[in-house]
Amino acid sequence: MSMTLGELAVRFGCTLKGDPASQVSHVATLENADAGAVAFLVNPKYRRHLAQTRAGAVVLDPKLAAETPGAALLSKNPYATYARIAAVLHPPRAVVPGVHPAASVDPSARIDSSASVGPKAVIEADVVVGAGALIGPGCVLLRGAVVGADTRLVANVTLCEGVQVAERCVLHPGVVIGADGFGLAPDQGRWLKVPQIGSVRIGSDVEIGANTAIDRGTIEDTQIGDGVKLDNHIQIGHNVRIGAHTAMAACSGVSGSTTIGARCMIGGMVGFAGHITVCDDVFVTGDSFISSSIHKPGYYSGGLVAQESASFRKNAARFYQLDEMARTLRRLRRAVFPNDAGADASPDGQEQAGEPNKPE
Amino acid sequence: MSMTLGELAVRFGCTLKGDPASQVSHVATLENADAGAVAFLVNPKYRRHLAQTRAGAVVLDPKLAAETPGAALLSKNPYATYARIAAVLHPPRAVVPGVHPAASVDPSARIDSSASVGPKAVIEADVVVGAGALIGPGCVLLRGAVVGADTRLVANVTLCEGVQVAERCVLHPGVVIGADGFGLAPDQGRWLKVPQIGSVRIGSDVEIGANTAIDRGTIEDTQIGDGVKLDNHIQIGHNVRIGAHTAMAACSGVSGSTTIGARCMIGGMVGFAGHITVCDDVFVTGDSFISSSIHKPGYYSGGLVAQESASFRKNAARFYQLDEMARTLRRLRRAVFPNDAGADASPDGQEQAGEPNKPE
Amino acid sequence: MSMTLGELAVRFGCTLKGDPASQVSHVATLENADAGAVAFLVNPKYRRHLAQTRAGAVVLDPKLAAETPGAALLSKNPYATYARIAAVLHPPRAVVPGVHPAASVDPSARIDSSASVGPKAVIEADVVVGAGALIGPGCVLLRGAVVGADTRLVANVTLCEGVQVAERCVLHPGVVIGADGFGLAPDQGRWLKVPQIGSVRIGSDVEIGANTAIDRGTIEDTQIGDGVKLDNHIQIGHNVRIGAHTAMAACSGVSGSTTIGARCMIGGMVGFAGHITVCDDVFVTGDSFISSSIHKPGYYSGGLVAQESASFRKNAARFYQLDEMARTLRRLRRAVFPNDAGADASPDGQEQAGEPNKPE
Repeated sequence: MSMTLGELAVRFGCTLKGDPASQVSHVATLENADAGAVAFLVNPKYRRHLAQTRAGAVVLDPKLAAETPGAALLSKNPYATYARIAAVLHPPRAVVPGVHPAASVDPSARIDSSASVGPKAVIEADVVVGAGALIGPGCVLLRGAVVGADTRLVANVTLCEGVQVAERCVLHPGVVIGADGFGLAPDQGRWLKVPQIGSVRIGSDVEIGANTAIDRGTIEDTQIGDGVKLDNHIQIGHNVRIGAHTAMAACSGVSGSTTIGARCMIGGMVGFAGHITVCDDVFVTGDSFISSSIHKPGYYSGGLVAQESASFRKNAARFYQLDEMARTLRRLRRAVFPNDAGADASPDGQEQAGEPNKPE
Repeated sequence: MSMTLGELAVRFGCTLKGDPASQVSHVATLENADAGAVAFLVNPKYRRHLAQTRAGAVVLDPKLAAETPGAALLSKNPYATYARIAAVLHPPRAVVPGVHPAASVDPSARIDSSASVGPKAVIEADVVVGAGALIGPGCVLLRGAVVGADTRLVANVTLCEGVQVAERCVLHPGVVIGADGFGLAPDQGRWLKVPQIGSVRIGSDVEIGANTAIDRGTIEDTQIGDGVKLDNHIQIGHNVRIGAHTAMAACSGVSGSTTIGARCMIGGMVGFAGHITVCDDVFVTGDSFISSSIHKPGYYSGGLVAQESASFRKNAARFYQLDEMARTLRRLRRAVFPNDAGADASPDGQEQAGEPNKPE
Repeated sequence: MSMTLGELAVRFGCTLKGDPASQVSHVATLENADAGAVAFLVNPKYRRHLAQTRAGAVVLDPKLAAETPGAALLSKNPYATYARIAAVLHPPRAVVPGVHPAASVDPSARIDSSASVGPKAVIEADVVVGAGALIGPGCVLLRGAVVGADTRLVANVTLCEGVQVAERCVLHPGVVIGADGFGLAPDQGRWLKVPQIGSVRIGSDVEIGANTAIDRGTIEDTQIGDGVKLDNHIQIGHNVRIGAHTAMAACSGVSGSTTIGARCMIGGMVGFAGHITVCDDVFVTGDSFISSSIHKPGYYSGGLVAQESASFRKNAARFYQLDEMARTLRRLRRAVFPNDAGADASPDGQEQAGEPNKPE
């Protein structure tokens, strides 16, 4: 696909600095772009590549227009504009309608004639696949699963019984939706399985990364809101609800029966305890452990960053003396500053704020 | 399936408060139950829903009998009783015997005639599948794998060569049992693969969550005891042994050659170093890092909980000054309390208790 | 396979202590070896088993030769020598050339005649499979994927479009290579997908553990160097580069656009922030969080180890008072040691070294 800079500027509402007749055909990084490429700048870490770039055009903020030697497509939201241009120059492969002869489809399933079902896919009884949907090779849709229009299951995705995925979603390989949650009742020294009879409902425009798993509800459905984006290797427990347009980075996990609000941004390797509520517009940095409900929008953190091992261990050893240090400090303060007013800074026996997650 | 409260009370040994002839047909949450539903109360967080529930009956502890307006099935272990009732009202789909024509089964495999093998399943040479077992769509059983009676592999499960799974287990989609462990010998700046010739033996009544992986042993077998319950996304390294009836929540990982005892409860995102031993009846809260052996039953914790970012970072910055703070504190104490008896609270150079996990 | 100790000593350059005509046929642990077995000792934790072993021969360091009662194969690198002996006594099953009739292979794919393609494998258009390669049951190779000579995809592996895997690699079940990375542009309260048009290139002699995922690049390729070893459940984000012979233990994750050097050793459950650079020869202990670039080879740590819960919580509560404790400490120091020279140990307002990972 080839377009002129003028066409791109008009289509995506950019101010063009440069020749509107210049042709571009692909995207590239600032560093490795050639004259037929569109590049972009968002992360200031890469600003140093701007002066030397040979890109046919750079998508960037108007404030930086003077810093690029060649043509520029100026946009207040350069990353979104770049994404739109990349999607036009590199369109996804069209879905080829039809059921591959090596798929296994139950006669009671309803597959829209414009949908595509790949080789070795398995579609059980009463499954519904909407218009333009793609069920890639090796996917398994157990009884009664529903896939909305234009949703793509890339390959080797598993939808368990009765799971519902709405329109325009993308599910990457290894995704498992609707496995039984971890419901166990202790019973005379053994674990009794608690039947998991709810299902999973996934909204529209949801993207789910490779090997992510979302468990079915215990009684009611686990629910993922419209526009939610889940990265790879994420674990969503039973009965969880995630609000619209929340994004969660890889390797994070949400324990059962927790509710996360809309428009949250969750970093990688973040853990959420079960049975808590996180309000809308909460941002959590990577490697944090959220053990209790959050009722106030804002930024939350909990991950200690690594140091050289010798230094880290020296300080970590003191962590295990902290309570004793605090008590000594209080004695000293009382002795040296006997007239200090107000409450004491270090009351005894206070518990860590928020109870750490108990095993369910 | 419909039953009377009287039938349920007799069958599960509950005291019935209410009309024994009332019919119920399904389970529901306290909040959304109707007159045909059985609900339950275990977690005190949900007690506020009790007074308003319209459930046909609530399963709960006898002490709370007065708090529910309608019928109640009173049980000392209400969660287990609820689980049994739910299993009766919502029985799992029966296994339909037979091998689907789209499965690929080696002629030397022995499949019990009452077992079910789904479409696109692959069963290699010398595999044994027991009575009533379910091998779901897309499962792959490599040469010599053994599946016990009434065990269910839901879909897309992989059993590697020679892996043994006993009776009444449930393995969810994406589970991989018996891949090679991470056995590497350094050799002149490269890594030499150490052959992984052990296998995996899984006891009876084990449940394994979606996308969990259990590696085969290096020489002897990795072993999972009877009644063990593993949630999703768990990593079990080679040569690990887990004792009977231990439960482990999602995203936890056990490094190679570690032994975990019986009846332990492990929270989510817990990491265990390799080559350590954890005794029976150990409870570990979520997000903890177990770096050395535990010889005493009890509760263990290690996860710092998140705070608002500004506050967390201010305190975390001090973490990296802790050793210096401790030394200053000691000097002050000696100056202010020169007659303090006993050992000094803050000896120098002490290492963090337990060596952090080294890369294997 | 049976060999004499003399043959093994000559072939692997060991000094033999014992009868060169003794036959051995298999490997075993020190504890459970019989006279036909070769055992080994590397980890000092297992030295106590040496005196009682009944092994036909033990591979160990020459310095320990006197401690074993029977025959010994002495080697300066006993683990590597053991690995080589085990590979000879327990050779991997030979690859049987040919395409299984239950595989689905596009006519445009080029499968070397010495390669093996298992049942229910799917090979799309323009895929290339090299000599001696194994494509196990249920593997899916999307359009244009390339698999080098003697590479083995054990089962249920997914290679997305255009992914390249070089020679002699091993990819375990559940591995997903080349899914779309987590590229999202915020746009008026929603997330816009950024097309992921790069691919993944994996070098030679790479091993990738069960359920590990490596995302394709946004524009250029994600790159894994020769000889890299990745354990199970690892997440490699888009645009990541990992240098040759680096090894990473299970459940670790590398955020997008981060570069890790050669010969690094990364423990389990380690997280790397995005857009950072880690130099060659860096060792990171388990459960650490690397939030900023590392420019100096050496050991790095960040994981607090667990304690008994009561003790941990008491100290953790003080963590949240640390900044206040530091301020009190400074006041005391100024009062008690007014003549202290040099900079103050506890400046205000200092941020935690390195910014915690922000959600991408």
